[in-house]
Amino acid sequence: MSESFDAVDIIRTKRDKGELPSAEIAWVIDAYTREQVADEQMSALAMAILLNGMTRREISDWTGAMIDSGERMDFSSLSRPTADKHSTGGVGDKITLPLAPLVAACGVAVPQLSGRGLGHTGGTLDKLEAIPGWRADLSNADMLRQLEDIGAVICAAGAGLAPADKRLYALRDVTGTVEAIPLIASSIMSKKIAEGTGALVLDVKVGSGAFMKTLEDARELAETMVALGQDAGVHTVALLTDMSTPLGLTAGNGLEVRESVEVLAGGGPQDVVELTLALAREMLEGAGVTDVDPAEALQDGRAMDVWRRMIAAQGGDPDADLPTAKETHQVLADTDGVLGRLDAMAVGVSAWRLGAGRARKEDPVQAAAGIELHAKPGDEVTQGQPLMTLHTNTPERFDRAVAALEGAWDIGGADQVQAAGSIVIDRIA
Amino acid sequence: MSESFDAVDIIRTKRDKGELPSAEIAWVIDAYTREQVADEQMSALAMAILLNGMTRREISDWTGAMIDSGERMDFSSLSRPTADKHSTGGVGDKITLPLAPLVAACGVAVPQLSGRGLGHTGGTLDKLEAIPGWRADLSNADMLRQLEDIGAVICAAGAGLAPADKRLYALRDVTGTVEAIPLIASSIMSKKIAEGTGALVLDVKVGSGAFMKTLEDARELAETMVALGQDAGVHTVALLTDMSTPLGLTAGNGLEVRESVEVLAGGGPQDVVELTLALAREMLEGAGVTDVDPAEALQDGRAMDVWRRMIAAQGGDPDADLPTAKETHQVLADTDGVLGRLDAMAVGVSAWRLGAGRARKEDPVQAAAGIELHAKPGDEVTQGQPLMTLHTNTPERFDRAVAALEGAWDIGGADQVQAAGSIVIDRIA
Repeated sequence: MSESFDAVDIIRTKRDKGELPSAEIAWVIDAYTREQVADEQMSALAMAILLNGMTRREISDWTGAMIDSGERMDFSSLSRPTADKHSTGGVGDKITLPLAPLVAACGVAVPQLSGRGLGHTGGTLDKLEAIPGWRADLSNADMLRQLEDIGAVICAAGAGLAPADKRLYALRDVTGTVEAIPLIASSIMSKKIAEGTGALVLDVKVGSGAFMKTLEDARELAETMVALGQDAGVHTVALLTDMSTPLGLTAGNGLEVRESVEVLAGGGPQDVVELTLALAREMLEGAGVTDVDPAEALQDGRAMDVWRRMIAAQGGDPDADLPTAKETHQVLADTDGVLGRLDAMAVGVSAWRLGAGRARKEDPVQAAAGIELHAKPGDEVTQGQPLMTLHTNTPERFDRAVAALEGAWDIGGADQVQAAGSIVIDRIA
Repeated sequence: MSESFDAVDIIRTKRDKGELPSAEIAWVIDAYTREQVADEQMSALAMAILLNGMTRREISDWTGAMIDSGERMDFSSLSRPTADKHSTGGVGDKITLPLAPLVAACGVAVPQLSGRGLGHTGGTLDKLEAIPGWRADLSNADMLRQLEDIGAVICAAGAGLAPADKRLYALRDVTGTVEAIPLIASSIMSKKIAEGTGALVLDVKVGSGAFMKTLEDARELAETMVALGQDAGVHTVALLTDMSTPLGLTAGNGLEVRESVEVLAGGGPQDVVELTLALAREMLEGAGVTDVDPAEALQDGRAMDVWRRMIAAQGGDPDADLPTAKETHQVLADTDGVLGRLDAMAVGVSAWRLGAGRARKEDPVQAAAGIELHAKPGDEVTQGQPLMTLHTNTPERFDRAVAALEGAWDIGGADQVQAAGSIVIDRIA
């Protein structure tokens, strides 16, 4: 990096709705990583980007600069093609757990670098840590070996991958600049491209429990990310999927592991199975594998075999009992009728308050806390029957968890209930 | 301050074009002063304010919160009314130097808290420090005594006055958020209101050498500040004045002191005299003194007497020779004709490069560096005559100073020259 620029000039350009040249974007990300551009300068720039936007070319340069801030992984030595999935986050979204072993069972290696939960959305690593002994941290060499031997790995991203993004993400979290599509897209895609996957499927959630509340925003984010991936030579497809109600019947770390194992055993809730198979088909197709039906690999136990080996390879005991909460509390239906709506955000916030999630990065989570649903939209319920069971080790949290559910559902006549559509709303490629 | 808010919520409200409640503005300024709100949060908020604006009510609350962050001065024990002037800054703007003693000579006390220069505009304190022995720092008690004894004081603002503004101003300077009218207006007015002056005259400059390049922006800033002053019970008037060409015939610290003394001696350039008298009349009227003609006090030596006492009271020797530069360089007219335009910004940048100004707050300035003009717009010039003389102790700076003047003037036929209008463009009260 030989050229040098002035951070204030760069901020002013974006503030005044200008387009940043490639060299200035490369400089500002590099200088921020080296702490030559201060946090207060980057946050002003992030706010200007949020309010004034970026062109596709600027987002592509920004993503490239974040990739260049760290190392790139290389899976070219593997004997199998690779595919990865990223979800923008939702309530009850445990899909990674059955999906990674399922795709591996079909012949494609899945190097799944995952994160922890923050706020009302859960984190894949938090969920797997409910399994006694399971470890999230692997060296790159261990990860490569597990991918070759077993075909699937779910682990934490190393500190060397897109360090500029790590610093910027923490900054955006405290400066009201999270909700900028150029910054969301570049944050996700810089890590996925640096990770070196051959194919990538994006699960872009839309609805009350998702980051993107409108189909329009979700579509813009998906299109931006697909273009970034394709520009970088990664076969990238996005599915827009519904997050107006929780996925499956559980939200909470250990509870979601249990449900994932049910899916791997050939059962589980219909919506979780449907989305797992839809994403698996996209990953397989992206990796060039078109002659395998993932539905069979779920039914015949091949996916479960990979799951058990994957968990064991990272120190976990796939046969161990999952932790159970000390206390439970049932929420009952207040009338007879058909459940017309069950709000994902309310359930997510309630599970979070029970201890399933964290308010700050350094907080611990409860492995057993969360919510079991006994009905989903479209189901008939009778007054007094349990709608959901809340789980926690800290029963003093029940009051605030129940308060979060205020107004979270409607029970009405069958005519008021919309027919449940497919969970996949659209496909962007 | 009993209520507590979340900085991220406040940033989001302004980011999403909302209006901040009074209690949230009071909290965020107080918390920023106590370092409970971080610089990176305040800079994101400042950028959102710059791009999305503030209502008059929000600006008033923001100004009040900055005043409340520190002490308020009290001049009520003085036997005379008080009036103060603030200029938004220009090139060759030495008006405070003759104005403060002139108004004091007419019976109104002038507590002039001034600043230092940054960038191409000079600072009043830097100018006065060209006088051997003169000191800018006074205690509040010394200031009050000098106001009672002599009637005029020009000194640095103490650290106790609007400390939130001091911190915020330094932050805006490095984050591209200086040019926000709500933040400029509240920064100026918080200090002037906390200072406790009874009347205030604002000299809002417009043109190439000013902060506000357009009459529209200057008018908005002036109207905002006049409303803030009047709401706070300060008799406030603004004059919009021309800053397309330098004021007077000098730009540079010692050079401007020399020109100011010429004005106090009854001479000096016509534009400096005109603006000094216009501002003096406004200050006197604002303070309720309507029976004194400041033009007489300039001519009969009364203003000069106060100047000499004011300088001496702060350790300066009014009879000492001013420093002269080691080297000078003449810039010559390249053709015959009438000087039609002489750009204020170019002259300001050139003087700055010669050493009259500073790039960073901690840089020293050269007392003798600067530019003398030998012609002003409307003057006839002949090829080869000196247009200006550059002064510096560091002649290696001449090249860059001359480069700053490239294209800074036009010499043409008399018909191309616009008639010089009054320096005062409009009055807002």
